[in-house]
This record gives sequence, C-alpha cells and structure tokens, in this order.
Amino acid sequence: MKTQVAIVGAGPAGLLLGHLLRAEGIDVVIVERASADYVLGRIRAGVLERTTIDLMDRLGLGARMHAEGLLHDGFHLADGERLIRIDIAALTGRQVMVYGQTEVTRDLMAAAPERGLTVIYEAADVALHDVASDRPYLTFEKDGALHRIDADFLCGCDGFHGPSRRAIPASASASFEKIYPFGWLGILADVAPCHHELIYANHDRGFALASMRSESRSRYYVQVSLEEKVEDWPDERLWDELAVRLGPEAAAHMTRGPALEKSIVPLRSFVSEPMRHGRLLLAGDSAHIVPPTGAKGLNLAASDVHYLAEALSAYFLRHDAGKVAAYSDLALARVWKAERFSWQLTRLMHRFPDGDAFDRRMQLAELDYIASSRAAQASIAENYVGLPL
Amino acid sequence: MKTQVAIVGAGPAGLLLGHLLRAEGIDVVIVERASADYVLGRIRAGVLERTTIDLMDRLGLGARMHAEGLLHDGFHLADGERLIRIDIAALTGRQVMVYGQTEVTRDLMAAAPERGLTVIYEAADVALHDVASDRPYLTFEKDGALHRIDADFLCGCDGFHGPSRRAIPASASASFEKIYPFGWLGILADVAPCHHELIYANHDRGFALASMRSESRSRYYVQVSLEEKVEDWPDERLWDELAVRLGPEAAAHMTRGPALEKSIVPLRSFVSEPMRHGRLLLAGDSAHIVPPTGAKGLNLAASDVHYLAEALSAYFLRHDAGKVAAYSDLALARVWKAERFSWQLTRLMHRFPDGDAFDRRMQLAELDYIASSRAAQASIAENYVGLPL
Repeated sequence: MKTQVAIVGAGPAGLLLGHLLRAEGIDVVIVERASADYVLGRIRAGVLERTTIDLMDRLGLGARMHAEGLLHDGFHLADGERLIRIDIAALTGRQVMVYGQTEVTRDLMAAAPERGLTVIYEAADVALHDVASDRPYLTFEKDGALHRIDADFLCGCDGFHGPSRRAIPASASASFEKIYPFGWLGILADVAPCHHELIYANHDRGFALASMRSESRSRYYVQVSLEEKVEDWPDERLWDELAVRLGPEAAAHMTRGPALEKSIVPLRSFVSEPMRHGRLLLAGDSAHIVPPTGAKGLNLAASDVHYLAEALSAYFLRHDAGKVAAYSDLALARVWKAERFSWQLTRLMHRFPDGDAFDRRMQLAELDYIASSRAAQASIAENYVGLPL
Repeated sequence: MKTQVAIVGAGPAGLLLGHLLRAEGIDVVIVERASADYVLGRIRAGVLERTTIDLMDRLGLGARMHAEGLLHDGFHLADGERLIRIDIAALTGRQVMVYGQTEVTRDLMAAAPERGLTVIYEAADVALHDVASDRPYLTFEKDGALHRIDADFLCGCDGFHGPSRRAIPASASASFEKIYPFGWLGILADVAPCHHELIYANHDRGFALASMRSESRSRYYVQVSLEEKVEDWPDERLWDELAVRLGPEAAAHMTRGPALEKSIVPLRSFVSEPMRHGRLLLAGDSAHIVPPTGAKGLNLAASDVHYLAEALSAYFLRHDAGKVAAYSDLALARVWKAERFSWQLTRLMHRFPDGDAFDRRMQLAELDYIASSRAAQASIAENYVGLPL
C-alpha cells in the first residue's frame, strides 16, 4: 500500500492529524495497535483549551462538543480552607471546555469513514523503517499477514510506549524526564459535581482534584503514594478523604456514589528532542508527557498536530519543505512552556515526601500571593487556557 | 535608665524604627554591640523599594538619597545569551532606588543626635530580661560597668545572630529554614557599571549579578560552591568569569578594576514565628533572612519597622494595644510573600548541584515564558518594587 502520510496511532492526536490532512486532500492511512473499542475505553483528561476547540470546529466536528460540553469561565485553587478563584474568562477573554478526551476521540472516529480517513485497527507489531531516507515505510501484521505501507512521511502519534520515538536513533535524540514520587487515585461516579468549576486543592494531607465529565458525572482524584493499591481505597474511604482535602465548602456539596472506575496513575514529565528525524515526525505523548495537573496533555498534542498539519500541507500543496524542517523547533517551544506550567502547578499543589516545613510554607505563601495578585492570576490563567500558537 | 522603647541593634532597621518613634515623641534608646565605624563598614545590599524610599522621605532624611541615589525603571534577567528586560516602571508605575544600605545607615546615624535619638555603641553582652512580663529590661556592659535599661517594650533589630530572637523560649516559637548549596562571591570596584540597570544572569556555569552603588562604583557577584575561597579567585579570574556568565552584551561594556572588597556570602532563607513574644517585638533579620536575590532583605526590615512604629505609636499615643497584638501576623503575611519571591528568584537564577537536565530545561523554559508574557513580567515587577503594605 502507498500513501502520502502514514500515521501510527488512532488516539485523538492521530485522528485529529488525519482529519486535518484529509481536509486538505492529502492521502492518509492510520494504523492502530488496539481495537476501536479499546481506544474508546481509555478514560483520560477532559479539559479542552480554546486551541483544541477551534481545531474541532475547523473540521466541522464540534457540534456534539458544543451541545454536550461545559464551557468554564474559571477554576479554583484551594489551600484546605478557602477557594481561590482564577477567573480565566475575565483575565484572558477565553474559556475552556469540559469535554472528555474519549468523546473527542469518538467524534473524530465516527467522522473518519465519510471523510475518506482510513484507520486500520488491530495492527500488530507496527514497525517503522528507513525513517531517515526519502522512502520510509511501515510494516505491521494483521489477520495473519504482514503488511507494508510506503509513505512520504511517517507520523508518530502512538503515545509514550509506542514504537515511533524508538525509531529515532539514541545518538540523534536527547530526553529529559522527571518522575514524581506519588500518583493520582481517580474515581469516576455518576453523581453531580460538588462545584460547577474544577477545584485543585493542596491540603496538608496532599493534593485533591474535583472535576467532572458532565453535570451528572463526576471525576475526583487524590494524591497517593506509589506504594498504595486501589484495593486499599474502598469507595467510602476515598470519599472521606476527598471531603477533607477539598475543604468544607466543596465537601458540603459533594454527592457520593459507587465508583464506575477507580485507578491509580503515575505522574511524569518527559520530553524527547527533536520531534523530527528525517521523514518521521512525532506529535503528542510519543514525544512528551506532562503530569495531569492543569490538563495540558491532550491540548499539547492538539497544538503539535496543528503545527504538523500546517507543515505537511505546505509540503504537499505548495512544495514548501521549510515548515517540515522547522516543525520540531516550533512545536518544542510551546511544549517546554506547557511542561513548565504543568511542573510548576504540580509542585505547587502536591505534598512531596522529601519536602520540609519551609517548602510547605512556600506553597502556602504562593497560594496566598496568588489570592492577592491579579498579575499572578493572569499568568496562571493564560497558561491554563493555552498560550498562543 | 528608663525609656519607653529600648531597641537592640543600630543597623538600618533599629535606626529607622528609632527615628519613626522619635518623630512621634516617643522615648527611645538604642543599644548596639559594635562601634559606629564598624556598623558603617558593613557592605550590604543597595536596592530600595518605594516603601523604603517613602519612609526616608517621611522622616525628612531623603535629601542625600535623592541627590546621589539612582532611580531605576527596570532590570534584566539573562539566560547567557539575551537580556530580558523587566520594565518595572511601565508594569507597576513605580521605580526602585539604587542607594547602598551603608548610605541609608549613614544618613540615619547622622540625624540621630539632632532628633534626640540616643544610640549607645559598643554595648557588650546585651541581654534581654522578663520579655513576657509588663516590665521587661535590657542589660549590657560598657566601659567596665553593667548597665540596665527598663522599658515598656524591647525591639529586636539585632540581626540573625543577635540575642533578641533567642530571648523567646523555643516552646513559644517555630522556625523555618532553607540553606542553599552555594554562595555569592562579590567584588566591589571603582569602575563604571557595565549597564545602567541590574542584570541577573543564569548561565550554564551558574548565576552572576551585575549591580552598582553609583555611576562610578560597580558591584558584581558570581555563584560559587561553598568550598571555594576568596583566595581561589584573583581579580582577573573573577572578571573573566563575569564576562562569560553575564553574556556578550554586558561583557562588551564591562570595565575591569582592582577589587576594593571581595568576599563570599552564604545564602539562606529563614523565618522565625511569631515576631512578638510579650513585650519583645522582632524586626528585620532578627526574625527572617532572605537570600540576596531580588534585594528584599533591607526592604523587608523597613516594612517590619513601618508596621512596628505604627503599632507602638497606637499604644503610646492612643492607648490602643490592638496593633501591638496584631503586629506579628501583619508583618509575617508580607514576610512570607517576600520569602517566596526571593526563594523563587534564587531557584530560577542559580545552578543547583543536585539539579538534573530536566531542571535546567525548566529554568530556561521559565525564562523563555517570562520573556514572552506580560503577565509573568508584571508578577515579577510587582514583587521587585515591593508588594503593597
């Protein structure tokens, strides 16, 4: 099989890129290791920046998002006692949209057939070949046969564990990583949220987050040590802990309910440079990971994909290879700033096992400063809604 | 001897407090361990916030400061290559004044006799007694005799190593501390500054600061490890290092000259709570230390003294003890925010021996973000000129 662009991975990054390229008439094939159902079963973040909303709208695929998503004008930081509101609409003139990553994926997936976007699911042993040459290709196994796709470009949208990043020789790349000494224990429940906006709390007992997927489905998290297991946290214990950490105002409005899903995720900051090697271009989690604090993961993938679609369109439609050459630097400049914001917000809002009493006071002093400073709030808000492309 | 307020320490904090109380007709005696010449020989920071400038003006002691001091509209952060200007005048409507702490002390000291402010220098073995009672007193030795001063209040303006903080029982206080794993090697020289504004640089080789005392006297610093000695740094080596770390633009305008003074100072963050115990009130370095990054030390002492003079004036002039009772909380709220700023700027601008490649990228990403964000610049600027009282 031959195509112009072969994409590895049919998560939101790969699908978004595929749709953007198809909208320009570029031939695309996506190969995905998992089944469509498996992809849709992954529960991930759910706060979209304006940039991401705009991409969905540009594709004409934003109808359900606008109907079902919740536009938010602000969010809260909490220090165990009070709520500090960050009024992102007033401070930046922009809003964010609460709409699950799963729903974005579902909308993109549903529109693929009608737009001529080929997605090959359950493609096993995907491998990338000759990526530094002008004739790169992919191979994979499906239905017992080995398949090959030749393409002008390969795009790696296959996440942190996918094969794309590993196709770049170690001698041609550098990686930067921070592993955090805790995880997030999350619970999904069909109960009304305790607040109509998100609450990020830094309590003496650790971080907690009150979030939601809809007006009747809540998503909560608490910081736990990496030694803890989901089994250690029966629902009631988790609700009790949330009530303490989120503070009295949130607790008073918290509705408890049985867990639809409960799991512990580790937190990691990671960047691999560069994001291009020859004819292979990386986007999203394949090149970088942010901790979930601040919900930058999906949005960063979306901005990568925005730059990447522009670069490939320039190449195929205007025979201009300059944007492909510039892609990595352009994407990384925004990536590093989002990494910084996610790292900083993670550090501000979590209890670190090696932190001392002075570190704790610095967190409280920073929250106190933020509560009193419009400039500090504006800085947080502009990062939260997404820095300009 | 009997007085209304006995102050320990005749540095800028003690002298400023003494003058403010004298201006209200309150009786004050200051006792100082060192000689007047020794006090004037100490070389310290030299950037005054508006708050500090205003206090000197209120006392009618700002004439020489306005004649000889340099008003600055901004300063620079540097990342080894470029200068990022923080336009504090445009961002906050305020300026800072470059005027050495030694000069502030000299002006306050010179005006003491005419204003009836008694300062007893070379008072040995100063000790504070019965501070939790209504009849506290000081003792000290001078000219071979033991002296005693009874006062309504004792004020500790005697710095980190003075006896005042130690007069508060450990059971009644808590302290918070961060020792930094490096020091500042400073050089003072009679050469024109390399730039008319300050430059704080974070180079791969470490921090450097280009500062000045006047248009013909420069003050430079480089970060060094705590193992290094002044003897390891002949003038030429230090000038060479400054030229590298400050970056090409500053280096091109740097004039070298023999060191008038060269020394290594350690960096520390420290806060002791509360700042009042009975009739003993602490101000400045006796209660808290900031690392010199951002020049908050003297200015924080000045804001403590401002609150403290108001509290004691309310007590003596209006028989209102409420402000004395509230002093510690009021002062500490501002102290912790200044501690936060100094700690954050120190972390942003220095190389930490235990920092890894990711940490370094976070510093560079933050500088890059600051360079691109008016909100981030505004936040730094409002802290640099001093948060509102």
